[in-house]
Amino acid sequence: MVDVSELVARAREGRPRAVARLISLVEGASPQLREVMAALAPLTGGAYVVGLTGSPGVGKSTSTSALVTAYRKAGRRVGVLAVDPSSPFSGGALLGDRVRMSQHASDPGVYIRSMATRGHLGGLAWAAPQAIRVLDAAGCDVILVETVGVGQSEVEIASQADTSVVLLAPGMGDGIQAAKAGILEIGDVYVVNKADREGADATARELNHMLGLGESRAAGDWRPPIVKTVAARGEGTDEVVEALEKHRAWMEEHGALSARRTRRAAREVETIAVTALRERIADLRGDARLEALAGRVVAGDLDPYAAADELIAGVTGNGS
Amino acid sequence: MVDVSELVARAREGRPRAVARLISLVEGASPQLREVMAALAPLTGGAYVVGLTGSPGVGKSTSTSALVTAYRKAGRRVGVLAVDPSSPFSGGALLGDRVRMSQHASDPGVYIRSMATRGHLGGLAWAAPQAIRVLDAAGCDVILVETVGVGQSEVEIASQADTSVVLLAPGMGDGIQAAKAGILEIGDVYVVNKADREGADATARELNHMLGLGESRAAGDWRPPIVKTVAARGEGTDEVVEALEKHRAWMEEHGALSARRTRRAAREVETIAVTALRERIADLRGDARLEALAGRVVAGDLDPYAAADELIAGVTGNGS
Repeated sequence: MVDVSELVARAREGRPRAVARLISLVEGASPQLREVMAALAPLTGGAYVVGLTGSPGVGKSTSTSALVTAYRKAGRRVGVLAVDPSSPFSGGALLGDRVRMSQHASDPGVYIRSMATRGHLGGLAWAAPQAIRVLDAAGCDVILVETVGVGQSEVEIASQADTSVVLLAPGMGDGIQAAKAGILEIGDVYVVNKADREGADATARELNHMLGLGESRAAGDWRPPIVKTVAARGEGTDEVVEALEKHRAWMEEHGALSARRTRRAAREVETIAVTALRERIADLRGDARLEALAGRVVAGDLDPYAAADELIAGVTGNGS
Repeated sequence: MVDVSELVARAREGRPRAVARLISLVEGASPQLREVMAALAPLTGGAYVVGLTGSPGVGKSTSTSALVTAYRKAGRRVGVLAVDPSSPFSGGALLGDRVRMSQHASDPGVYIRSMATRGHLGGLAWAAPQAIRVLDAAGCDVILVETVGVGQSEVEIASQADTSVVLLAPGMGDGIQAAKAGILEIGDVYVVNKADREGADATARELNHMLGLGESRAAGDWRPPIVKTVAARGEGTDEVVEALEKHRAWMEEHGALSARRTRRAAREVETIAVTALRERIADLRGDARLEALAGRVVAGDLDPYAAADELIAGVTGNGS
């Protein structure tokens, strides 16, 4: 068994291997998962969580990398959680020929973690918040969560960030596609990347129109800015950081940050509860208790609802 | 509120409207659902449940109708549950121009119920067994469950019948498609319908080969028969009924019927339990209790697992 408090202490000191070990523990639903989560709880809340999402090809990882560089210049500790299967961050590989990645890989102030989109016990909605929690407790000031804006759970993860950034690129027919995927609704900040390409202004205009940004809004409402960048050259990145800071300040001023975090935690707790109950019930397949209940249902001694009640009582420890 | 015992008594007498009303009550998750299911429990177990599945166009509803005719001639009461969206039985419409359907619609010994494949609270896996239970308690001797062998839940429903019939037709490239859909594994009886068409013998041979029916089996093992029919003219239907009777006799002789029904009931109870727990948790969205727990998680006073434990205790009545 791992000494959890020792591991947490080392992660707090900034040891990357301790952080990696903790994430593995919470990702893999190890027997010590609960112990880890309990140890982390009082240490969380310090990190600002930024979600970055967009269709494949808009330059999400390049933008993420540019943001890492900007935050590192400002002396912040940065965590990156990449759940985009097309990202060079993910798949566990930091390809040597991708200079922009390897530069961060050797920086002790940056934690990079990739997450497979499949194979998790309760799916991404279950695993991502736990990895974020580890990075938070490890002392990251900013956590960048990069997801491809395609699957519903990826969009959901991005939408649950403190600030959600939606990325687009010119000439990809993004307008309609993004609207279909539902990602246009979740942006607090919009970025038109690859702005040196033809059509960048048209994309920004179309976006402005679709978001109704030209219309008047109630005073005090957040008006999502549209920032043009060329992330590969770092152009516009400072403006993105500035937009993120503005949104954060607006959220804090309006009590929206606390409300959003509470909503995120509620969703997290709910997902854990549903996953736990489903597992407990699945564990009973082939179990003598379920078979005995089923036998009574077949015999007509018990209706299936009464049997389900007994099953529920069994898995929740209530009345058993 | 409906007088459930009165309704059940009338259903037992063979009143079609009482049967229809009961199915509506159990399908719609009415507040009286549990009362109905408790009243039905001691009355069930008398019906023999036959699943019919196959790709669209193989003639499932024609075959179902031919079987209804055959069973009615033998004086049996028949229930039909059609969960095939392409079936003329389903969609609530018994089209007047389909003579083979309307003939049964006016027969008081036949109950026909269609079931939408969407919109049910817990899905088909939840709703179909309950409708079967009503038809069983209403005194049906045979219940024919017609499902299109495409979706996983449809295949699952068919596979949970006492006897599963898989239908194919010549020249539809069925072999490979059926194998892909996983429906080839679940047949107790195989029917090659439209056997007057070219390629019927080839389809039967291919099927025979795929199922390994030419290979030797252990004595006492069930060897699924392949029956050729032209259901539109009633040809081969008696042979199908005979095959069904043989399988039933084999099941009873080998204790397999009781084992299969117990497995079906276990799956039903499990589905009800999971659905109930998910609903109870979903009901807490926006509830003060979930929000309070989430607030404590955000504050770092509670980890999300401990919060989920409290949530589970709350929804199961344990410790609350």
